[in-house]
Amino acid sequence: MRMEKVPDIVIGRLPLYLRALTQMSAEGSSVTSSHDLARRLGISSAQIRKDLSQFGEFGKQGTGYNISFLREQLEKILGVDKTWDVAVIGIGDLGRAIAHYAGFLHRGFQVCCLYDSDPEKIGEIIKGIKVQSMDLMVQGIRQMNIKVAMLAVPLSAAQQVADDLAKAGVRAILNYAPTSIKVPEGVHVQQIDPVLHLQHMTYYIDKP
Amino acid sequence: MRMEKVPDIVIGRLPLYLRALTQMSAEGSSVTSSHDLARRLGISSAQIRKDLSQFGEFGKQGTGYNISFLREQLEKILGVDKTWDVAVIGIGDLGRAIAHYAGFLHRGFQVCCLYDSDPEKIGEIIKGIKVQSMDLMVQGIRQMNIKVAMLAVPLSAAQQVADDLAKAGVRAILNYAPTSIKVPEGVHVQQIDPVLHLQHMTYYIDKP
Repeated sequence: MRMEKVPDIVIGRLPLYLRALTQMSAEGSSVTSSHDLARRLGISSAQIRKDLSQFGEFGKQGTGYNISFLREQLEKILGVDKTWDVAVIGIGDLGRAIAHYAGFLHRGFQVCCLYDSDPEKIGEIIKGIKVQSMDLMVQGIRQMNIKVAMLAVPLSAAQQVADDLAKAGVRAILNYAPTSIKVPEGVHVQQIDPVLHLQHMTYYIDKP
Repeated sequence: MRMEKVPDIVIGRLPLYLRALTQMSAEGSSVTSSHDLARRLGISSAQIRKDLSQFGEFGKQGTGYNISFLREQLEKILGVDKTWDVAVIGIGDLGRAIAHYAGFLHRGFQVCCLYDSDPEKIGEIIKGIKVQSMDLMVQGIRQMNIKVAMLAVPLSAAQQVADDLAKAGVRAILNYAPTSIKVPEGVHVQQIDPVLHLQHMTYYIDKP
């Protein structure tokens, strides 16, 4: 039961809440409040209450939120109460770091296959997964019914590979190539380009 | 001359415009329009015109924008008409990928020093830069007057290292550790956590 009318900016904050709650759990807490969350996240407590209230009644005035209950609910809402298989495309330095990263699994994602076009890399095994040829990507992703991909190919290849991913049935692409890519309706893209963040910050700071 | 009243969300889009203009240049274009940019970026042309108009008159009705002029202006506004020295803290898989990444330089940033606490890594040379001990970080960053840092340490160390970076005079921290960090006023933080993006997207897609 998804409430499709919730603004995207609210959806974007839910993973932050989930991450903070998971940390609180790990620290041994079982109950929290919008004020606790606010302090941790630098988001106002009113905003947090308003965001969460869009999905139901998760806390009670005065008693706060039960952390494990709220975590479960957020995991369901975000669709990470199960584990998504993820394909990583492009096994350069970054793709390799992604393939090695241990932080996906307990948060709903599992790297299950790796693709590259470089014959030197094809056949290499990273964390138990064999790098496969790009030529096998569309067929492989379709067969394994993979819906989530991380795109770490060079800029010049990004759009073509994104097109192929969409064709293969991928619905969510995390784009690490420093370029905007176009996708058909129904496919979601988010991008990670560290320079965009750095330039955003240098706006505010005086030149040395 | 910065106009501090421009909303942060607008500032966040300027690097996107700059990136698109740089690509257009590389493709051989010298003139563009808000409509061209809109098509490329999936942002409305009205929004683009409105954003840019906050900083001056960059284009003329009917003739569009001169790409190299607009690039120069955006670079000045964002403070990347010069090159910022950047410290990378934490030389795991990700820090290593960052240190190797060639895409910073022509966009205003240059990795100049690497720090880690692991004796096995200290002394290693990556792309001509020697990994130094974390113990030397505060002093080194202060001496070199470094204002920008990328934080790729484990979650458990992130806040302490961020505190040290602020103490050393760093004003912009790109945080790759999957946790929210607190910084004193005047220090800016942006974070990169791929799982936040992935979870944001899985909200929208049906479970397989």
